[in-house]
This record gives sequence, structure tokens and C-alpha cells, in this order.
Amino acid sequence: MKSINLSEKFSQFTEQWSPHIIADLNDQYIKLAKVQGEFVWHDHANEDELFVIIKGTLIMEFRNRIEEIGPGEILVVPKGVEHLPRTKNNEEVQLMLIEPKSTKHTGKVNHELTKVELKRI
Amino acid sequence: MKSINLSEKFSQFTEQWSPHIIADLNDQYIKLAKVQGEFVWHDHANEDELFVIIKGTLIMEFRNRIEEIGPGEILVVPKGVEHLPRTKNNEEVQLMLIEPKSTKHTGKVNHELTKVELKRI
Repeated sequence: MKSINLSEKFSQFTEQWSPHIIADLNDQYIKLAKVQGEFVWHDHANEDELFVIIKGTLIMEFRNRIEEIGPGEILVVPKGVEHLPRTKNNEEVQLMLIEPKSTKHTGKVNHELTKVELKRI
Repeated sequence: MKSINLSEKFSQFTEQWSPHIIADLNDQYIKLAKVQGEFVWHDHANEDELFVIIKGTLIMEFRNRIEEIGPGEILVVPKGVEHLPRTKNNEEVQLMLIEPKSTKHTGKVNHELTKVELKRI
């Protein structure tokens, strides 16, 4: 029941590709992440995933299309759809994610970037 | 799987206190609303409700506290908590809402501002 300032929360961490939980919403987590470079192809079999871009431009590759998302834009990746997030111009992107608590970071893929325990800030 | 530009969606309607659906997310709707003035005290018994402020400042009254939320800030109203949204300085506020599809606009309260059928844009 407190307003959450996103800039203030972003200032609390520097790790990239490491979502931090900031709130709960209907059995989902609201998370913030800083990302740069390329992630890994994966999907979430049962969970839709919302990307809200706060800073920078994210490129979301799907197997048959590519989308660009900037500040003031959002993208829903539907359950079961393979996707590869990467950043444009190799600049850091700040984003807010909303997805069910059951969501695994890289789906069924295990990768050196995979995070299992997420911090709450 | 398309990025959604919030400004472009806001340009598609002028009605206030009338959320418009822009996407689906895990049995929830993502909605945009323009609001000005004061709404009505209500709660949602089973649904958490996320407010993301895009433009302007929203004042959220609870029975025992008041929160202000501006651009770059978010607020989760937990299920069952009575709240009264109103705008600061009587300026229009643009916001994004995320809540379960089952959520009724004014909870169990019927009011002249209550919307039953929401448009999808």
C-alpha cells in the first residue's frame, strides 16, 4: 500500500540479467531488471510475461519476427512462445517484468545466466 | 507479440474513468485509463490491482493513509483494501492498470461512474 519509485529501486542494484522482486500482484511478482547484450533463447510453458521498458531499447527476437520496445512501450510474450531478449546498441536497458511466481528465469533451459533465487528489494 | 505504444493507445480515447483494454496477461487485463477529479470508495474482494502512473499525479486514499503516485511510480492496492483514487490539482492523470479479468470496476459498489463493458483498443 506504499507507492514504489522505480528509479529509487533501480539504484539499489547493479547486476545485469538478475531480476529483483519489488512487489506481489495476484500470484505474480513485479520485478525490475537491468540488461545489456544478449540473453538466451527460452520460453515459459505456462506463463505470460510482461515487459515494460523504463530506459533504453530492447530488441525481442521471436522465431519469426523481431520487435523493438522503448520507453513508454510494453510487450507481452505469451506462454509457450520462444523469445530472445537483447539490447540495442549494447546499451543497458532498465525494464519492469510482471510474470507468475512460478516462472523460471530461462524456462526449461539451464544457462550460466540462469538465476534461481531472486532478491527482494 | 507486438510492442504496444502507450501514447498511441491513449490518443484513441478521451473518456475519463473508463478503462480501455490493451492486452491480456495471465487471466488479467492490462488497461489504460484517463482520470480526473474523484472516483468512489470501493474495494475488490479477490483481486490485487496495480496502478502504473504514466502522466500526472494520482492521490490514493486508504482509510488510514494517503499515498501520492506520479510518473515512474507504481502502487499495488491489495485485495480487500478500500481505496479512493483522485487526481492532484484536478489535472487529468493517465495510468495503466493491471488486474484480473474478474475485477469489477467499482467492486460491489454501484455508482454512476461504474463501467460494465470495457472497450478493447
